[in-house]
Amino acid sequence: MASPAMSGFPEWLPEQELVQQRLIDVVREQFELHGFLPLRLRSIERLGDLLHQGETDKEIYGVHRHGAEPSETGDAGDGLALHYDLTVPFARYVGERSHQITFPFRRYQIQPAWRGERPQLGRYHEFLQADADIIGRDVLATRHDADMLRLLRQTMDALEGQGVPRTKLMVNNRKLFEGLLLGAGVASDRITPTLRIIDKLAKLGKQKVVALLADVGLAPDRAAAMIDTLQTEIADEKILAEVEKQGGHELYLKGLAELRQVLTACWEDAAPGTVVGALHIARGFDYYTGTVVEGYFAEHPTLGAVCSGGRYDNLASGDSMKLPGMGVSVGISRVMGFCLHLGLFKETKKTPAVVFVAVHSEETRAQSDLVARTLRGRGIPTVVANDASAYGKQIRAAEQLGVPYLWFPASGDKGHEVKDLVRREQADADLATWAPPSPGRA
Amino acid sequence: MASPAMSGFPEWLPEQELVQQRLIDVVREQFELHGFLPLRLRSIERLGDLLHQGETDKEIYGVHRHGAEPSETGDAGDGLALHYDLTVPFARYVGERSHQITFPFRRYQIQPAWRGERPQLGRYHEFLQADADIIGRDVLATRHDADMLRLLRQTMDALEGQGVPRTKLMVNNRKLFEGLLLGAGVASDRITPTLRIIDKLAKLGKQKVVALLADVGLAPDRAAAMIDTLQTEIADEKILAEVEKQGGHELYLKGLAELRQVLTACWEDAAPGTVVGALHIARGFDYYTGTVVEGYFAEHPTLGAVCSGGRYDNLASGDSMKLPGMGVSVGISRVMGFCLHLGLFKETKKTPAVVFVAVHSEETRAQSDLVARTLRGRGIPTVVANDASAYGKQIRAAEQLGVPYLWFPASGDKGHEVKDLVRREQADADLATWAPPSPGRA
Repeated sequence: MASPAMSGFPEWLPEQELVQQRLIDVVREQFELHGFLPLRLRSIERLGDLLHQGETDKEIYGVHRHGAEPSETGDAGDGLALHYDLTVPFARYVGERSHQITFPFRRYQIQPAWRGERPQLGRYHEFLQADADIIGRDVLATRHDADMLRLLRQTMDALEGQGVPRTKLMVNNRKLFEGLLLGAGVASDRITPTLRIIDKLAKLGKQKVVALLADVGLAPDRAAAMIDTLQTEIADEKILAEVEKQGGHELYLKGLAELRQVLTACWEDAAPGTVVGALHIARGFDYYTGTVVEGYFAEHPTLGAVCSGGRYDNLASGDSMKLPGMGVSVGISRVMGFCLHLGLFKETKKTPAVVFVAVHSEETRAQSDLVARTLRGRGIPTVVANDASAYGKQIRAAEQLGVPYLWFPASGDKGHEVKDLVRREQADADLATWAPPSPGRA
Repeated sequence: MASPAMSGFPEWLPEQELVQQRLIDVVREQFELHGFLPLRLRSIERLGDLLHQGETDKEIYGVHRHGAEPSETGDAGDGLALHYDLTVPFARYVGERSHQITFPFRRYQIQPAWRGERPQLGRYHEFLQADADIIGRDVLATRHDADMLRLLRQTMDALEGQGVPRTKLMVNNRKLFEGLLLGAGVASDRITPTLRIIDKLAKLGKQKVVALLADVGLAPDRAAAMIDTLQTEIADEKILAEVEKQGGHELYLKGLAELRQVLTACWEDAAPGTVVGALHIARGFDYYTGTVVEGYFAEHPTLGAVCSGGRYDNLASGDSMKLPGMGVSVGISRVMGFCLHLGLFKETKKTPAVVFVAVHSEETRAQSDLVARTLRGRGIPTVVANDASAYGKQIRAAEQLGVPYLWFPASGDKGHEVKDLVRREQADADLATWAPPSPGRA
């Protein structure tokens, strides 16, 4: 039943999957250290709940019972669909259970999402995301925006420790952005289409975006001036103070004050240049209302965002309560796709096993099994050779899997011995105390 | 946007999600200790590949682009669907990449699957499974069946350590089963429908199944005698030897020899009565060819299987090679559903955080943040109070989340203090060395 790969549905090789799992574990560790609860929500939503959020409907995957009559399809006559992000379902969950939840509610989710967009490098129909969000009851202070950005910064730093390129976080604020547009003369009912045009600035460049902005009634000179402001990058306190001096629309100044708060908090512990104000960042989703962030590989900005996030004051709501939220998201599949494209992750380990136990002969396999059982009981991942073949062949089998240690069980007069397959050294070993020099899990 | 829960799509409460994550971690640990690689495959398959495996098509969820013309739907004119298990997609993956994989290939997958069956207790439209499988190239010795069952036994034992009820594994063999049917006079082209009928024995009882077996041409007396044999439970060597003495069809004896091999291996380290031969176990899927297993809560057998597995010699195939496999599966959602139904999992912890840092006043929040950052840097999950309210209120906030320790940052002459919220004791603490008595992660 071998059939060609399905475009837009990436599946990695075993050695790559082991890397991906390590990245996921690193992200998870950061989220849990910050007290975020692991949550897994259903993948399927009511279509109406998704369309309500204004996502382009062509991008949504509908779900139906195969072989069922149309009238049987869906739930109570309403269509079903796969979620296209993790934020909308989370907001729905919190809204449904607002009386059973302790606020502020911090959760993380590491799950796939689905979109029908045309696949390209790093953009998939099915992709894995790792989201952390905080939702408050009635209010959520702006300092949480700063906390979430710092969490994202630390998470991307932790990924950097695993060989992922350095990420640059570009932070903006929707209020600032909208205020800037209003100040430039964009009509208040044209904010959303204007925002969608400016979102393409990095991709299309200034000239094309100026041309597109004529569609929303902006003259080329005002459009060009606005874009110059949008292209400001606020990398430090000095530039921030200069931007503030210029003044502007009331909403713009309100957003700028929030941006100051989150940037200065991030700058306390972020490496210079890794968190900057970037006034052109808009984020595609309609639900953002304040802080927004996108992260790019600093050395490869054209590859597209690898992480993102933002503040959403009106996405979730419970019975007679507002539920404002702020979240960040790491695109695990994107990071994998980009890193593999860049030729990173040359790892060859194909198993979590640290020890490969040799088998002297099929008659003595039980001894090898016993060694494996003992090591596992001591927390050391272990596999046993599949064939009692020549030792050279068993060594090659261990090397093919990328297992670092080969264990020769005691036999006759000889005690247990362990061969370090990297250093090509062999030594006596005590089954009760031997441990690999590095932690057991790869 | 609060709307009623969707039947068949379970979502747990925060404190239950934390339990589920612990169960998943325990399963994962066992799988990794045995050298199984973490794998995540796409959720969507070509419909044809799923139907090819003979699953009742009404149970499959099709996937389509919302708003697309029918001709645009799917991939190259073929329909798409959500997978209904993790075995068929895994076999497809191995078949596609047989030249890039080192055999025998061990992987585990913890992902949802989807089925349109009528929801009931423990049976959901979307459910989480944890599968471990081994696939060999050309051959896979029967000892791997035994190894996989022992892995399943150890995994269920590890879950028992987390408060899940004791599981009893019921093992059978498809060859034995088919041989028994042939010996009883079932025509060889009626094996599959007969098997489906007998699969309902636990649910319907002997009398109803005897009646149903008339449909496949089996007279009531022969059907009843066959069912008596099927109801044999092989709990130890003595019963096993008795069953062997009775003899039977050639295929039956071949299957019985395999069953002996796996049972005696399991009995080496399993608690008495936790792994038994159960000749009526058939498993619903067509792809099993040898060993099959189902596990039930020993004290609650009517709740249905919580784990399962089996040998499939013909599901996967590569270019000019056979790829026989054997897998086991833990129904995470089922375990959760049954345990909650039984009133287990009364846990009230709603966060991975171990420390809740109090805030003396908004002006000194930075000190609390610094404590949190330091503790996190030392691997201790920590949250900071949301409000600088009265200490009593902060204590209640920590207790509501189920965080065991409250940290009072140094202030004025006073050094850091930690309050154990369970023992109601407060003591001085050193930020550089303090650690919770139990491991940080819940």
